[in-house]
Order: sequence, then structure tokens, then C-alpha cells
Amino acid sequence: MQKVGLLLGGCVRLWKSVRMASSGVARRDPLANKVALVTASTDGIGLAIARRLAQDGAHVVVSSRKQQNVDRAVAALQGEGLSVTGIVCHVGKAEHRERLVATAVKLHGGIDILVSNAAVNPFFGNLMDVTEEVWDKILDINVKATALLTKAVVPEMEKRGGGSVVIVASIAAYTPFPGLGPYNVSKTALLGLTKNLAIELAQRNIRVNCLAPGLIKTNFSQVLWEDKASEESIKQALRIRRIGKPEECAGIVSFLCSEDASYITGETVTVGGGAPSRL
Amino acid sequence: MQKVGLLLGGCVRLWKSVRMASSGVARRDPLANKVALVTASTDGIGLAIARRLAQDGAHVVVSSRKQQNVDRAVAALQGEGLSVTGIVCHVGKAEHRERLVATAVKLHGGIDILVSNAAVNPFFGNLMDVTEEVWDKILDINVKATALLTKAVVPEMEKRGGGSVVIVASIAAYTPFPGLGPYNVSKTALLGLTKNLAIELAQRNIRVNCLAPGLIKTNFSQVLWEDKASEESIKQALRIRRIGKPEECAGIVSFLCSEDASYITGETVTVGGGAPSRL
Amino acid sequence: MQKVGLLLGGCVRLWKSVRMASSGVARRDPLANKVALVTASTDGIGLAIARRLAQDGAHVVVSSRKQQNVDRAVAALQGEGLSVTGIVCHVGKAEHRERLVATAVKLHGGIDILVSNAAVNPFFGNLMDVTEEVWDKILDINVKATALLTKAVVPEMEKRGGGSVVIVASIAAYTPFPGLGPYNVSKTALLGLTKNLAIELAQRNIRVNCLAPGLIKTNFSQVLWEDKASEESIKQALRIRRIGKPEECAGIVSFLCSEDASYITGETVTVGGGAPSRL
Amino acid sequence: MQKVGLLLGGCVRLWKSVRMASSGVARRDPLANKVALVTASTDGIGLAIARRLAQDGAHVVVSSRKQQNVDRAVAALQGEGLSVTGIVCHVGKAEHRERLVATAVKLHGGIDILVSNAAVNPFFGNLMDVTEEVWDKILDINVKATALLTKAVVPEMEKRGGGSVVIVASIAAYTPFPGLGPYNVSKTALLGLTKNLAIELAQRNIRVNCLAPGLIKTNFSQVLWEDKASEESIKQALRIRRIGKPEECAGIVSFLCSEDASYITGETVTVGGGAPSRL
Repeated sequence: MQKVGLLLGGCVRLWKSVRMASSGVARRDPLANKVALVTASTDGIGLAIARRLAQDGAHVVVSSRKQQNVDRAVAALQGEGLSVTGIVCHVGKAEHRERLVATAVKLHGGIDILVSNAAVNPFFGNLMDVTEEVWDKILDINVKATALLTKAVVPEMEKRGGGSVVIVASIAAYTPFPGLGPYNVSKTALLGLTKNLAIELAQRNIRVNCLAPGLIKTNFSQVLWEDKASEESIKQALRIRRIGKPEECAGIVSFLCSEDASYITGETVTVGGGAPSRL
Repeated sequence: MQKVGLLLGGCVRLWKSVRMASSGVARRDPLANKVALVTASTDGIGLAIARRLAQDGAHVVVSSRKQQNVDRAVAALQGEGLSVTGIVCHVGKAEHRERLVATAVKLHGGIDILVSNAAVNPFFGNLMDVTEEVWDKILDINVKATALLTKAVVPEMEKRGGGSVVIVASIAAYTPFPGLGPYNVSKTALLGLTKNLAIELAQRNIRVNCLAPGLIKTNFSQVLWEDKASEESIKQALRIRRIGKPEECAGIVSFLCSEDASYITGETVTVGGGAPSRL
Repeated sequence: MQKVGLLLGGCVRLWKSVRMASSGVARRDPLANKVALVTASTDGIGLAIARRLAQDGAHVVVSSRKQQNVDRAVAALQGEGLSVTGIVCHVGKAEHRERLVATAVKLHGGIDILVSNAAVNPFFGNLMDVTEEVWDKILDINVKATALLTKAVVPEMEKRGGGSVVIVASIAAYTPFPGLGPYNVSKTALLGLTKNLAIELAQRNIRVNCLAPGLIKTNFSQVLWEDKASEESIKQALRIRRIGKPEECAGIVSFLCSEDASYITGETVTVGGGAPSRL
Repeated sequence: MQKVGLLLGGCVRLWKSVRMASSGVARRDPLANKVALVTASTDGIGLAIARRLAQDGAHVVVSSRKQQNVDRAVAALQGEGLSVTGIVCHVGKAEHRERLVATAVKLHGGIDILVSNAAVNPFFGNLMDVTEEVWDKILDINVKATALLTKAVVPEMEKRGGGSVVIVASIAAYTPFPGLGPYNVSKTALLGLTKNLAIELAQRNIRVNCLAPGLIKTNFSQVLWEDKASEESIKQALRIRRIGKPEECAGIVSFLCSEDASYITGETVTVGGGAPSRL
């Protein structure tokens, strides 16, 4: 019976540490039972956000354009014991957006959270060299698809009595990244989209906020920091000491989706390590 | 009668010296000999800008989508003794943009100034009702066409050793007008486009700035103020005493295009009568 | 041995729920073992912040200008099982600031977090009626004392290898509250102070951010909403559906002080229920 | 000879009409008959503004703290044929502010324009080294004195039926200059002061705007660019091609004070050569 005692003791100690560690379930599991869609979430910032939302209690549906990337991300996150499923979604296609919504509803009975992270790979080059096709693609995917995906998700949020949308923009919305004109402009547009959606959706109890990551170490931004010299030069220009990590963008998104942010809507939070953004 | 001739000659010389020379000339005729394109300039703010640029000495090419509107504006401005010609231009069409540029070059030998004012009539309704087609139209005309028209004009400015672009956005870029979501978002995008173009074109000696009009009395904004009650309510919301006039937007555009603004680029100036914009 | 099995089973289930609920202690107790100073924290937003920091694991030192208010707040928070002590502090007085710092160090061995919330009661009246004395008081307490208190705390943070400062400004920093000129101006100054401190303290691993509450139901703001008519009119002007609660400002402060915000510095987060602030 | 007389008369009339009337007069002499106070106007940006206001037709009262600087500036500007007088004024002293106002009223019968440019020489050093005395001085002169001088001038503007105030802040209000913390913060405060004064003074027909110069070549900024290396490094950081000249700040101030800016109030215009400021 000594072992039983030990076990009991251990169990009590464990229980106590749980009780004292935090004063309530909401704080431990701020997104418990919430259903979250995260687009472009099989890599980089999107993946870090998906992981964090799931760690914070949400059922997360990850997506991106390639089946193998979806499979890899789902496997990795499920392997961490998280409640994650995945589906291919090209957000520029209406039927894909609808399928994404339908899948989440079918799997989990509704949608509470949308994190819109999808963006085309930035075109590097001068604005003066940008063709009509490049502009079309960037405005279509980065701006229009974000608006239309939100539109597709809102009716499901309304059925649940409300919800939360987070749009991923970029610090380049404020302070342009050199050589990325159309990308930067599309991100500025998202600041406005956030404000406008927030105003319109307030009466439906849906909050809409925006994340503006600075320079974060991802495949996406690799071209900006891949050699030591350009990394140093961009750190100098951004007045930052170090490049950020994708996980450093994830906590704020979970926070903005939680009940703790109940009075925050229409706002953009910059995660930029002190790089110049705005007052 | 020789003396009379001398006096006459003196009088003419005086007139000429007043019109064309002395240390004050730049100030009196700040845009003398400049060639300016103004889009959507047969009515409202665009027309007021075209008139002012011409009054300040520029040769102005006005344009809009309908021949009869172009004819009417040109007749009116020429009747005021101004150097104005006109051409039909739908800025969403590449061949129209090229024709506009070619016409100005043919008529006046080059281009120094572009004022991009073209915008689709705003769609009134909720963001949640906006179709893909409406988004396409608004982003195409308000954002993409502005970028592409600038691209088309820049080579001509380079030939002249520099130039000045003014993009007409809206105070709604900062503080959304209710019920005008996609329009507002497209105007926010223009703030970013201004910054990006300014950075890229600085080395070509081309400055790019932006005008953000507040609530101005035009056909365009009529729906916002046409009955007394809604006028009062919008004045209350905007914290303004009165609605602005198109001419009150014109002086700043001429200023931004003049040598006096030689160190101003990438900036937006709000003409809003004190309505909330930004710090 | 059945009981042992049951116990074991229960323990495992408990353990699993702990594991799945949250991936680490940091998430449950994000501020565990941190020492936090919160000024003007015996009422309203400051009190809500102090409570939340303590709930999230911090040892909190509350303060304000009156002993009885300090006693009441400490009693209330200790009654909730939180680790809270208190001390009288008038932040405008150097010896008070020093005593506050010394007390925290003596009690808890150091300081990790400073939330600077102290502000003079706003002077209601026109800017044209403001005397030199009112300006002095407002700039002294709201701006200078914030800077000097940070200066006093920084050496203690450095000893701990870093820290986090949150300055409480106001949405009025962006969009002035009518009739509160000097207060509004002092809050705008705090946006700049945040940026400047963030840049200077980055190399010491101290992050500095800012909270801009909108209209929050406190004694402080009572004059703005105390009768139904003025509440409705201000809600209209702010385009908000409801006035916020102090607790709705507290989560974001705790978040900004936590490791989750490791790449956020120099930023202001507005908690305004959708009221116009800035892009 | 009658004809000659007629011609002469016509010529005189033409000259008069050119000088004093017609639709172009406001444009040629936009500040004709206006009385303008400019503080800190015996050097650098202030002097350039004073000169420009006078060139544009205003009677200008220059001032700064030292008699010999006032004398030198007045002599120089009068030597250019401009209507300029001067008086010593330390804006931090109430009796100096009152004397400045009284002098202008005595000389010219009233005041239409105030350009508030006075600022203490920036303290170079870390925020962590700033003493209470430095903070006092900077907030007193840069913020409080600006508000109080405006307060002193407003009654005179009201007697004239309206007026225009321009406050000189700095681009450092948005993007801090390194090592100039309190200066930067005081300039951010001026952005807020501008907004607040604009709202309050709108009903008195007084417009209040703000100039935010970037890096301008003056004695004031010398420390930032005096050796070639630091000039290059700051140009890199500011993303500018060249440092601005004081005169490049003057045109916009004259514009903001003119009738052409009748619907612009509460706004800040940055003159920064493309350096990062804000959207």
C-alpha cells in the first residue's frame, strides 16, 4: 500500500500544481472547444499559429495549396497530441473556400475563429516592372480572397453567436520592404480591410483584428536574410537586434481570438522587434 | 505716336515681366510650362484640380470616360483662358492609358505631372454583400490602374529629368465611411502605393504624394449629404462644421506638384475640415 | 489493488488533461515568479491589471496616493488568494518613486514588470482656459513621472536580465476626447515615450509597450457616461456598441509582459471596442 | 496726348490690377496684409519660414531669445525689401509672450498667423540619463509654451474673424532620432496638441496645423550630419538621398496659412525627403 500512497501523494501534488498554476480553465485553455480555420498554415507563421491555437484548446483545421504539405503539417501537429485536421485550400478559388468552411462545419459543428494568412509569394522587383498579371494575382489572393473567405465564414460564426477573425498583414504595410511593392501595398490594404470588417461585423459579435509581423525567419522571408551581409543590413535598416521566430507571432493571435480580447476590434498589433511601424 | 508706341511697348513689357519673369515668377506661376495629366477630371474634385493646375501655369490634359463630359470640361476651362485639352480615357484599359500618355507627349512634348483621381463609383452596401465582381472592379480601377498609369507616365517624366505624381485617396482610407467597405479598403491601399512609389521613384527625381479629401460636396458624395438630416448626422460623426468644396482640395495638389514641395515625397495630406484622420 | 488501479487511472486521466490543456507551465502561469509594480492600481483599470498580473502568477506591488485606498485594494486582492502587497506612492515625487522600487526589491528581490498607469484626474474645460499650473501638473505626472519611474526601475530589471514595461495611455492619444485637451496631449506624448524607451532599452532586453484604453467604465471616466443621454452620444461618436470594462484592459497587459510577447516592443495596443484610433 | 494719357492710365491700371486685384491676386500674394508671428525665427527653419511669409505678402514679426540675433535677422530680411520687424522673446516666459503679442498688435493692428517654432536645443544622451530638470525644460518650452502662446494669440485672431496656427514639430515625432529621447517625445506631444487645438478652435475660424521637418541642414541638426560618415549613416537610416534645406520647409507653412488651405485643419505635413514617417 506504500505504492498506493506514493501514487496518491503524487496525484495530489499534481492536482495542486494544476490548481495553483492558474485560477481558471479559461486561462489554461483559452480556446477550449473553439473551432479555428487557419489558411496557409502548413509552414512558417501560419503553422506556428495553428499549433498555438490547438495548444490553447482549439480544434484547428489547417490548410494550404498542396496536399503533401497539408499531410505533413497535420501529421506533425497530431503527433504533438493536438486536435488538428487538414484540407487543401487555394483561397483564391470560391469552391475551395466553400469546401474549407463546409469541412470545418462537418467535422466540428461550426466555426469560431478564422486566421487568414494566405498570401502569394512576393514578387521581387521594381514596381515599375510589375505587370498587370502580378498585380491581379497579389490583389486577388492577398486582399479579395481575404474578404471573401471572411464573408464565407461569417454566417457560421453568427450561428455560434459570434467569433473572431485575425488577418495576417505585415509591418511592410507601414514601412515598405524594399523591392516588394505590390506585396507591401496589398498588406496596407489589409489594415483597411480589418477596420472595415470590424465596424460591419461588430453588431454580429464578431471581432476582427490584424497581425503585422516584422522580419520573421521563414522560407517566405528567406531571400531577405539568407546571407549574413543582407541579414545585417536589414537588421540595421529595421533597427532590430534579431530576426523574429514564427512562434513569436502565434501568442498574440491566440490572445486576440480569446475572451481576453473581448473589447479589442479593428486593431493591428505589430510583432516587429522594435522596427519602425507607427505611433 | 512713337511715344505711344513706346508706352504701349513698355506696357506690354510690364505685362510680360509680370506674367513671366522676376523673382516672384515661380510663385505667381508655380507650374509654368509644366504638362499635367489629370484623370477623372471633368467633374468634382478632379475638375477643380485641373482648373487650378492650369491657373498656376500648367498645360493640362483632362480626361474621363465619356466624350461629352470631356468636351464640356475642356470648353469650360478653355473659356476661362486656360491651356487645357482633353481626351477620353478609361484608366482600366491599357490602350487608353497609353493613348493618354501619347496624346500629352504629342501635344506638349512630355509630361511633368500626373494626378491620378480615377475611381469607380462606390458600391453602397455591406461588405458581407460584396461580390467578387465588385471587388475586382474596385481593386482594378482604384489600385491597379493607378499603379499602371504611373508606370506608363514615369518614362516620360524621366525624359524631363523628374516629375511629380499626386494620387487622390480619401479620408475614408483612415476612418471608413459607413457602407462603403471596398471603396474604403482601396483607398487605404493607395496610402501604401504612395509610400512605395515614392521610395522607388526617388532616385529618378520623381516625387509621389497623396491627397486624402474628407467629405467634399460633389456628385460622387451626394448620397452622403443629399438630405438635410443625413448631412447633419455625417457632420456630427466627422466632427466638422461644414462640408468642403472641390476647390479646397485643389490648392494643395498644385502645391505638391510645385518646386516648393521639393522635399515632400511619400506623404499624404488630408483635407478634411478637422474630421478624425490620424496623428 | 483495484483502488490503486482506479487511483492510477484517475491520475493518468488528470495528467492527460493537464498535458492536453496546455503544453507548459508558462502558458498556465505566464508570469510565475515575476515581480510587478503597478501604479495607480487601487481602482479602475489599474486595479484590474494588478489583479490579472497576480492571477497570472506575479507578485504584485500595488500603489496609489492614499493609504486607505492601498489598504482596501491589498485586502481585496489578498482575499482572492493573490500575492499582493501595497505601498503609498505619488509618482510625481522622486522619493516616492525610489521608495516604491526599494520596497519591491526588499520584498521580492527584484523587479521584472512595471505598469505605469498613474495620471492626474483630467481637467475638464477648454484648452483656451488651461492655466500654466494645470499644464505643469499634467505634463509632470503623466509624462515626466512615467519616464522617471521607468528610469528608476530599469537598473533593477537589468539585474534580472531584462524586463517589461507597459505604459497606460488612452485612445484619446489618437482621437481627442472633447474638453480634455491637456490630458489628451499628455497621452499622445506617451505614444512617443513608448517608442523612444523601447529603442533605448532593447539592448538591455527590456521591452516597452503601451495600452490605449478606449471608453472604459471607471470612476475616472464617469463624467463621460454618467447620464444616459451623454452615454448614448459618446457611444455614437465613438461608433461603439458598449462601454468597456476595466478587466477587458487587463489581459493584454499581462500578455505584453509575458514571454509570449518576446518580439513585441515599442507598440501600442488599443482596447477601444472599435472606436476610431489609427490604421 | 490724351491717348497717351489713356494708355498710361491703362498701363497703371493694368499694373494695379496685376498687383492688387483679379482672380490671381490671392495666388501671387497669398498672405497680403496678414500679420504673422514666427518664434525662433532668426535662424534655420524659422528664418526661412519668416522670409517666405513676408515674400508672400505678410507683415512678419520675427523673434528669438537674443537681441543680436533678432537684429541680424531683421536687417537681413528688411534688406530684401520685406516687411519685417523683430523683438526678443523667450517663449517660456509669460511676460515675453504677452509682449510679443502686444508688439504685433501695436505695430500692425492685429495678428492673423502664428508659427510656433521655438524649441530648446535637444539634449543628446540616453533617456536613462535624463534628469528631471532636462525633462522640465523640454516639456515647458516645446509643449506648454506652444499651448500658452497659442492661447495668448487666439483672442487677437478672433478679433480679425479667424486665423491660422502652424506648429513646428519634427519627423522624430513619428520615427525617433537616436539619442534625442525627450526632444522626440515633446515633438510627438505636438502632434496631439495640433489635433486638440484644431478641434477647439474650429468654431472660432482658426485653423491649426503642424509641420514635421525631416533632417534639415541647420545649426540645430548639425551634430547629426557634421562629419561625412555620420551624414551617410543617417541618410541610409532615413532612406533619403539628401538632407533638406530650410527653405524646403517654408512653402508648406505659407500654404497652410493661406486661404488655399481653408479646409485643412488638425493635420501634420511631413517634409522629410521620403524618410519613414507614417501612412
